[in-house]
Amino acid sequence: MGIALGELARRLGGVLHGDPDCMVTSVATLQNAGHGAITFLANGRYRKYLPATQASAVILGADDEEASPTATITVSNPYAAYAQAATILCPLPFPEPGVHPGVVIGDACNIDETACIGPNCIIESGVTISAGVSLGGGCFIGRDSFIGAGSRLHAGVVICHGARIGARVLVHPGAVIGSDGFGLAEDGGKWLKVPQLGGVCIGDDVEIGAGTTIDRGTLEDTVIENGVKLDNQIQVAHNVHIGAHTAIAGCVGISGSVRIGEHCRIGGGAGIVGHLQITDNVTITGMTLVTTSITVPGVYSSGIAAQENASWNRNCVRLRQLDTLARRVQVLEQKLAGKG
Amino acid sequence: MGIALGELARRLGGVLHGDPDCMVTSVATLQNAGHGAITFLANGRYRKYLPATQASAVILGADDEEASPTATITVSNPYAAYAQAATILCPLPFPEPGVHPGVVIGDACNIDETACIGPNCIIESGVTISAGVSLGGGCFIGRDSFIGAGSRLHAGVVICHGARIGARVLVHPGAVIGSDGFGLAEDGGKWLKVPQLGGVCIGDDVEIGAGTTIDRGTLEDTVIENGVKLDNQIQVAHNVHIGAHTAIAGCVGISGSVRIGEHCRIGGGAGIVGHLQITDNVTITGMTLVTTSITVPGVYSSGIAAQENASWNRNCVRLRQLDTLARRVQVLEQKLAGKG
Amino acid sequence: MGIALGELARRLGGVLHGDPDCMVTSVATLQNAGHGAITFLANGRYRKYLPATQASAVILGADDEEASPTATITVSNPYAAYAQAATILCPLPFPEPGVHPGVVIGDACNIDETACIGPNCIIESGVTISAGVSLGGGCFIGRDSFIGAGSRLHAGVVICHGARIGARVLVHPGAVIGSDGFGLAEDGGKWLKVPQLGGVCIGDDVEIGAGTTIDRGTLEDTVIENGVKLDNQIQVAHNVHIGAHTAIAGCVGISGSVRIGEHCRIGGGAGIVGHLQITDNVTITGMTLVTTSITVPGVYSSGIAAQENASWNRNCVRLRQLDTLARRVQVLEQKLAGKG
Repeated sequence: MGIALGELARRLGGVLHGDPDCMVTSVATLQNAGHGAITFLANGRYRKYLPATQASAVILGADDEEASPTATITVSNPYAAYAQAATILCPLPFPEPGVHPGVVIGDACNIDETACIGPNCIIESGVTISAGVSLGGGCFIGRDSFIGAGSRLHAGVVICHGARIGARVLVHPGAVIGSDGFGLAEDGGKWLKVPQLGGVCIGDDVEIGAGTTIDRGTLEDTVIENGVKLDNQIQVAHNVHIGAHTAIAGCVGISGSVRIGEHCRIGGGAGIVGHLQITDNVTITGMTLVTTSITVPGVYSSGIAAQENASWNRNCVRLRQLDTLARRVQVLEQKLAGKG
Repeated sequence: MGIALGELARRLGGVLHGDPDCMVTSVATLQNAGHGAITFLANGRYRKYLPATQASAVILGADDEEASPTATITVSNPYAAYAQAATILCPLPFPEPGVHPGVVIGDACNIDETACIGPNCIIESGVTISAGVSLGGGCFIGRDSFIGAGSRLHAGVVICHGARIGARVLVHPGAVIGSDGFGLAEDGGKWLKVPQLGGVCIGDDVEIGAGTTIDRGTLEDTVIENGVKLDNQIQVAHNVHIGAHTAIAGCVGISGSVRIGEHCRIGGGAGIVGHLQITDNVTITGMTLVTTSITVPGVYSSGIAAQENASWNRNCVRLRQLDTLARRVQVLEQKLAGKG
Repeated sequence: MGIALGELARRLGGVLHGDPDCMVTSVATLQNAGHGAITFLANGRYRKYLPATQASAVILGADDEEASPTATITVSNPYAAYAQAATILCPLPFPEPGVHPGVVIGDACNIDETACIGPNCIIESGVTISAGVSLGGGCFIGRDSFIGAGSRLHAGVVICHGARIGARVLVHPGAVIGSDGFGLAEDGGKWLKVPQLGGVCIGDDVEIGAGTTIDRGTLEDTVIENGVKLDNQIQVAHNVHIGAHTAIAGCVGISGSVRIGEHCRIGGGAGIVGHLQITDNVTITGMTLVTTSITVPGVYSSGIAAQENASWNRNCVRLRQLDTLARRVQVLEQKLAGKG
């Protein structure tokens, strides 16, 4: 168990300064790493811990090489290299293939023999479970769904009927994929339900956080493209389309029919109004409300930083009268101009 | 399978222009409908797709009738008529009545023989399950709860003890009804739990989204009246009362003892401070914070639209000094008045 | 059944005015209490109901004593005393010890014989379940987790592998503890997963609301200290540290590596940016965004109160130009000063 630094440096595409035969067996933080551990420096905030680290080796960028008291693997992207090193040193324990006794399986399912189906799972009819899939305890897979090769659903995930999940998708506990969208037609003061007849299509290499909900489409599919990463407690409404490699932090709400481009980053607690389009490479900061389409890549915000309460309240009172204040300034300008 | 246009027009209360014997068998969007499908035009945003639609018929309003290249059913409310048509053409598959083997059922339960209880459900003692109820896989129904006729709980719903769910209620996966409210009494710097002894009462024809949580009352009931529609990931705290036919979008947080009127509409991500009253027919837009009771019907907001980040940051700095700015304007006004 | 007022007053440390032998058997609100019930007055909002209460006794502060039409127990903290009284009069029904048939239990588990393990629970290998623990139906306890004495997990709770839960912890349905944090390293436009190798450590007497998610740490532990109270649908990211006796309301999002002090109070829907430190005794009001560390105890805000929509929109337009407005005021000031 463990890997020699020479071999690790080779796999990370980095340059080793130190003994290539030195074995590392674990990963740890700069502060807490001990003998046999490899650590990393990717955020300047932690640079102060480098000189005293007890690690056997550090993954870092060229600028930090000299300050290291121990072996280094120098790379251009220390955080990505660390992620690879941690994946090599601490691989996820993969459950044994097989179907736990007592699992409920419907008719006409196609369950690969290399899949692992945990206790108390419910698999409805017509489901395909591909090679190397792992379902944690108590998952529910609705009829006619498809789970692609190597995907891993943790305990208590609900996949509704007809959902298509790609390969190597990771879904955390309590996530719900394919629930009905919020489709309502007003009819004389009451609400008629609009049947939600579309599906959900999740690409490859997608990660879906705990408690995140992704609704099925109304007539066509809700689509999450390859490589999208969704944190916990995100709400994705019906007919949303999220482009490849976009990452979205926790507690974001995305309204119906929103189309988000590729390589976007959306901060925690942001909200996006329905039917908008957001182009590629857009960053939206935390708790921002997006009310119009964004056609130019860049960073967008409307979150307000906290302030001591008494000051904030005074400012808020003025904010509620801001239009009037602006008009008063205009009057002053006119008066002064008149006098000029 | 399918319905003749003449019969469909009759059931929708609309006027048919076209062959009454033409059969439609599916629903689709204007853009993607093919032969045998009926579609609809209810939102001007999609009007451009009408002339080229391949649908066999279109549900629309009188103003759009002439632009249709195919048969039309003209109605006053196309979206509501479409909802009805889709419900007729694509009825939900209703599970076979019966109790799945292995379901755990406590003492003194009353389970109607027309109900369908899915695999791995847990029904505690004293529960009533009415006619035509459907429980998806792995639902939990706490002791002494009541589920009204025709209600449908999807997989993984938790109903805590003593909850009363009305008729034709639809609950999506992962929703929790009747969890303890957040009742705490401070006592010397620590928190004492206030027992949550009330219940939850959900009316008829309510829809509750995936991951939504509705707490039980402290001493009396949390009440959701008939026809209320709740989207995903809404938090309804203890002792809240939501009036009939109010619709609430995803990620809204409603604090304890709030009373919301009938026919209100609350946008996604809004928050309502505890103990407030909101009258009937109030609309609250997305990400608004409600801090005082609302006694006049109308539209209320405090969400701020996103702006390019650098501009926003400059404006935010000024916002934090807005009270001072307003005082400076006042001084200028006084000076100018003195000079006037 | 019930308790005599004299005995109750003694246990609450209060002063009884009334018959010490009078029995009370239930708790209720001032408005709805009847004979045999004890009620309380802790919030001035409800004072108007005191003169007409039908309760057998009222827990209140000295100032309200004279206005009571019935027996009183006078205490310094009526709400805390009420919480104690309700706990005495309405104790939670404790499930019978024992493991429900069909529960799945892995190897090398240590399950105390006084614990109650509900139907359909899944307990992986190496788990310790301490004395008096109660697991509701369908809970999942990942391998090598530890659940401390007297803790109670309601239905459908997921505890991921290696989590440590203290004593007398209360977890509501659908909560997820120990899910992977959102750790991503960008690598050429794609995201590499950073293995989440830390754990979660929950102290004693913690309460965790329905649908709340607490991620495991990346390398070290996410820590929730003793006596912390978390409401529903809170997101706690990896490596967060929450100090003892802090209370957090629903829908709050706490980003990674945030450190919150002791005795803090965080209002609903607030958001805290990653890596910040918040000192002890800080109050953050609802829907506030915290973007910098808070080093001084006090109250902090950035939530904006709702306003009638048309006025709000006008103000918002000005807010987007606020920096320009401030510069215009500065110009006016300079002009007037020049003229002074």
